[in-house]
Amino acid sequence: MSDRFHFTVQATDGRARSGVIQTPRGEIRTPAFMPVGTAATVKAMLPESVRATGADILLGNTYHLMLRPGAERIARLGGLHRFMNWPRPILTDSGGFQVMSLSSLRKLTEEGVTFSSHVDGSKHHLSPETSMEIQRLLGSDIVMAFDECPALPASEEVVAKSMRMSMRWAQRSRDAFGDRPGHALFGIMQGGVTRELREESAEALKAIGFDGYAIGGLAVGEGQEAMFGVLDYAPGFLPQDRPRYLMGVGKPDDIVGAVLRGVDMMDCVLPSRSGRTGQAWTRRGQVNIKNARHADDPRPLDEHCTCPACAGYSRAYLHHVFRAGEMISGMLLTWHNLHYFQELMAGLRDAIASGTLAGFVARFEAMRAQGDIEPL
Amino acid sequence: MSDRFHFTVQATDGRARSGVIQTPRGEIRTPAFMPVGTAATVKAMLPESVRATGADILLGNTYHLMLRPGAERIARLGGLHRFMNWPRPILTDSGGFQVMSLSSLRKLTEEGVTFSSHVDGSKHHLSPETSMEIQRLLGSDIVMAFDECPALPASEEVVAKSMRMSMRWAQRSRDAFGDRPGHALFGIMQGGVTRELREESAEALKAIGFDGYAIGGLAVGEGQEAMFGVLDYAPGFLPQDRPRYLMGVGKPDDIVGAVLRGVDMMDCVLPSRSGRTGQAWTRRGQVNIKNARHADDPRPLDEHCTCPACAGYSRAYLHHVFRAGEMISGMLLTWHNLHYFQELMAGLRDAIASGTLAGFVARFEAMRAQGDIEPL
Repeated sequence: MSDRFHFTVQATDGRARSGVIQTPRGEIRTPAFMPVGTAATVKAMLPESVRATGADILLGNTYHLMLRPGAERIARLGGLHRFMNWPRPILTDSGGFQVMSLSSLRKLTEEGVTFSSHVDGSKHHLSPETSMEIQRLLGSDIVMAFDECPALPASEEVVAKSMRMSMRWAQRSRDAFGDRPGHALFGIMQGGVTRELREESAEALKAIGFDGYAIGGLAVGEGQEAMFGVLDYAPGFLPQDRPRYLMGVGKPDDIVGAVLRGVDMMDCVLPSRSGRTGQAWTRRGQVNIKNARHADDPRPLDEHCTCPACAGYSRAYLHHVFRAGEMISGMLLTWHNLHYFQELMAGLRDAIASGTLAGFVARFEAMRAQGDIEPL
Repeated sequence: MSDRFHFTVQATDGRARSGVIQTPRGEIRTPAFMPVGTAATVKAMLPESVRATGADILLGNTYHLMLRPGAERIARLGGLHRFMNWPRPILTDSGGFQVMSLSSLRKLTEEGVTFSSHVDGSKHHLSPETSMEIQRLLGSDIVMAFDECPALPASEEVVAKSMRMSMRWAQRSRDAFGDRPGHALFGIMQGGVTRELREESAEALKAIGFDGYAIGGLAVGEGQEAMFGVLDYAPGFLPQDRPRYLMGVGKPDDIVGAVLRGVDMMDCVLPSRSGRTGQAWTRRGQVNIKNARHADDPRPLDEHCTCPACAGYSRAYLHHVFRAGEMISGMLLTWHNLHYFQELMAGLRDAIASGTLAGFVARFEAMRAQGDIEPL
């Protein structure tokens, strides 16, 4: 394998692209969905099982890992890959988003943000420079620039001011990151739902120069219509030859809509979080396994699915173990959900490669419209 | 495979025996340790992973399964093996022990016991006849006779009276079980720690005639010395050509002591329950992964262990995920513990087969005496 980070667009279909990101730790097929391994584990899964679902890359959360077990500790133990037994690529976020959503007693200045840990109340500091250092200690393959993401709804003035600070932080992130062959640094576009701000942000990032570009500040409650509205133009502001990463997305129909609009990478806790709360995602939409209608149903979640949950177990069993509070419930449903999400990505990639994306999307929507199978 | 249930003693070393139980669902190598799959799942494990540890047979709990999801439901869904995706042998207990330890509002008569479910308070009845019927609905390969197990300490008079009722229940169990080729019925010896009562119980069971014989009423708080005291004579009261099953045992040194005294089968929740509470069992004794000494330790739990937890993860990682409350903690430690218990059984079987049990036990005790590895 090359020791360089390199992205190749191999096919396009409309605005959608399929391709591959080469990294020293392996290939990432795009469009890619990244399961989230917040605290050095994709919850309820062993990493070899995550790989078996088809994932090429995981996301790790800088905020969680810096607090527990600590970035220096992970570095002493050989880095995040060895620590969590995942030898393939890892993208780490910058910590900025979680500081805003999880910590308390925050103090935000141009320099950075000081906050109290949600774990033990201890005081910590994050800035472009410390975020780069922590992500370096973790050994992340794709490092995210440190940014601020204002909660929506916010006035255009607030969004603009925040975006411009994030662009100054992007430059500081770039400077602090330095030159690290085989490791990539992604900038993050901000600007809320305002086209001019998105364009201004993209221009600022391109002037700095990054290995990839994220679209930040979406999937934070603005709704699918507003998100797709931004995605109708924002990817076009970014370089054609660099990966575009839509952060925190999403539901299967969000993913399909984003890929149609030129997005190459996404991440979301949805498949794993849903799995632990008894929610399964299938080609025919969402299934609530808690529902009593499943108690005597000998059929699998999806008869066409090849995941261990569908190959080995009835809805009746999945219903029983969820009701009984058994760990195997979260284990099987998470596996199923991750498998379904990765199968969706594989289908999108194949359809783009063969120029049949419109047909694929039509079938995707027709299956969803059918809804779940009828009760017996 | 034969459609018959058949036990063969293949080797002996002192009072210890190694052999094999043939069943239509596969062989059970003895001495055998049976992981407990209470509610149709060995907690925190997929069944293929339980098999990978070397388990030939699981134990299911009649009491739990009759209450949730219900024996008739499991029968409609094709039986417990298909329901929980474990095609190999399953032994079910009779429900008697759990009624006494878990349910409330019990009423015990010669006929049987009426009780309230610990799940929803609903009223249920168990007797020799209903227990046989429920275990038949579950599809159990090895069915246990319905017995009463008085809590110790109890007066000899109480123990004797209870044992004699259990022997009448054993006859009713035998009558209700009938003739079911390929399925076995085991009687359960009672009699507390009184040699004469144990002998009387054994004679009563042998007069009825069973496919195997359990030693019940031990591992209920009497201590290892008292248990071994009973095991010094009780197995000798039972037929040489039938498996002897010591119920609810135990810790690794309990297992070794029981095998030395002629026991062929055991079951215990210990490896799985310990795994979920951060306790690991290794050749060098117990390890509390919660302990801060492990936080920076790059070494595995046991460098000679080949289980996924030891092959892929440091003590530091296992410490971190336990502290963070991550499911992978229980998944990995349970796997390790079950692997260690099965490796111990394999070592015992090999040592008996080669006539080297004394040396094996000496090494087992020497390793335990060393205690866990020194902190770094």
